[in-house]
Amino acid sequence: MASDNTSPETPDPGTVRPGGRTARVRAAVLDAAGDALAEGGFAGLDLSEVARRAGVGKTTVYRRWGSTTALVADLLADMAEQSSPRSDTGALLDDLRANAHLVRTTLTDPRQGPLFRAVIAAATCDERTAHALHRFYEIRVAEWAPCVELAAQRGELPPDTDPHEVVRAVSAPLYHRFLLSGAPLDEEAAERAARAAAAAARAGAYRTTPGARCAIIEA
Amino acid sequence: MASDNTSPETPDPGTVRPGGRTARVRAAVLDAAGDALAEGGFAGLDLSEVARRAGVGKTTVYRRWGSTTALVADLLADMAEQSSPRSDTGALLDDLRANAHLVRTTLTDPRQGPLFRAVIAAATCDERTAHALHRFYEIRVAEWAPCVELAAQRGELPPDTDPHEVVRAVSAPLYHRFLLSGAPLDEEAAERAARAAAAAARAGAYRTTPGARCAIIEA
Repeated sequence: MASDNTSPETPDPGTVRPGGRTARVRAAVLDAAGDALAEGGFAGLDLSEVARRAGVGKTTVYRRWGSTTALVADLLADMAEQSSPRSDTGALLDDLRANAHLVRTTLTDPRQGPLFRAVIAAATCDERTAHALHRFYEIRVAEWAPCVELAAQRGELPPDTDPHEVVRAVSAPLYHRFLLSGAPLDEEAAERAARAAAAAARAGAYRTTPGARCAIIEA
Repeated sequence: MASDNTSPETPDPGTVRPGGRTARVRAAVLDAAGDALAEGGFAGLDLSEVARRAGVGKTTVYRRWGSTTALVADLLADMAEQSSPRSDTGALLDDLRANAHLVRTTLTDPRQGPLFRAVIAAATCDERTAHALHRFYEIRVAEWAPCVELAAQRGELPPDTDPHEVVRAVSAPLYHRFLLSGAPLDEEAAERAARAAAAAARAGAYRTTPGARCAIIEA
């Protein structure tokens, strides 16, 4: 697996702000890194090759990112920032449908699908990548959580529903197909994921008060 | 990534029957392969090293398995054969709880957890391993599907419920924690996975007749 030492001079990639040459270099390098990951996986990722693809000096890439794991962490931070905002249809099932549709189109995209596979595989054997991946999903789940909070406020769900768990429940069966069962990631699968999460949430399966949860589901 | 050519003389590993020296050699080699995967991942898997660990001749291992991907495929077939039979408590929620508990204890086991991580990572970049992994989950899901079929026969669920989808729904949020979010795989997570799958199934989210499904959930 490709790996380099992080130089102590490497700035925290999160501190690089948009605008100007710095932002353009970051965008070009992250694009090139994403392409390289999608094509060759994490094992084939190489900072010099990323610099060449991005048309950026090798020294710049080594100085700013320092290692392939730092580059992947910054790519995941950028992916979280760039990804689509949540929907707000006014109905829980429609919002969860929009979320399921977004997850499905991302995982079946010819560039994004292999890119996610590469990053998930890398996270299984690298702590820093695992941490960056957890953070990516944390940001995405937080983006969509208000759909569930608003549904609870509208009275569609029990008020003590854990919104993050409902959002994760929409993605989970789609990632299960993507990584484990190999079952098709079709519109039917996305629709079912949204409906199942909505139904379980309505039945109280994601309530944060265990006693209340038991009473409702076992009734 | 370690890889060797499959020799045309390699017997189909599935044809090796239990009993006798052949079975003992297979058991020793698969144990050693599982240990090696758990410790070093797929990239570090090496047939000679597996032979050494198993106390078996290198030639035997190369002749019978021929490649690391064939060895992993046979290991997954063996894991599916060896894994625990389904429960039969007479109540859907208790059966799904038993399944969630089994998935959780497997993924948090100090040997099995890293082994699953290694195989899932390998499947993201190797077709043959992906196929063996799909087959592994197919067998496990088929083992537990009767819990759902029996619940439908008892009238706990709509009769046209897809039993495989319900079983996969129990595992999906646990694997989501294991591979993506990093959230703890505790008993609370297993309990919630079982309850959510049962609630969604009762609400008709896994019915095979889309019209019927809409009518029930949107009512």
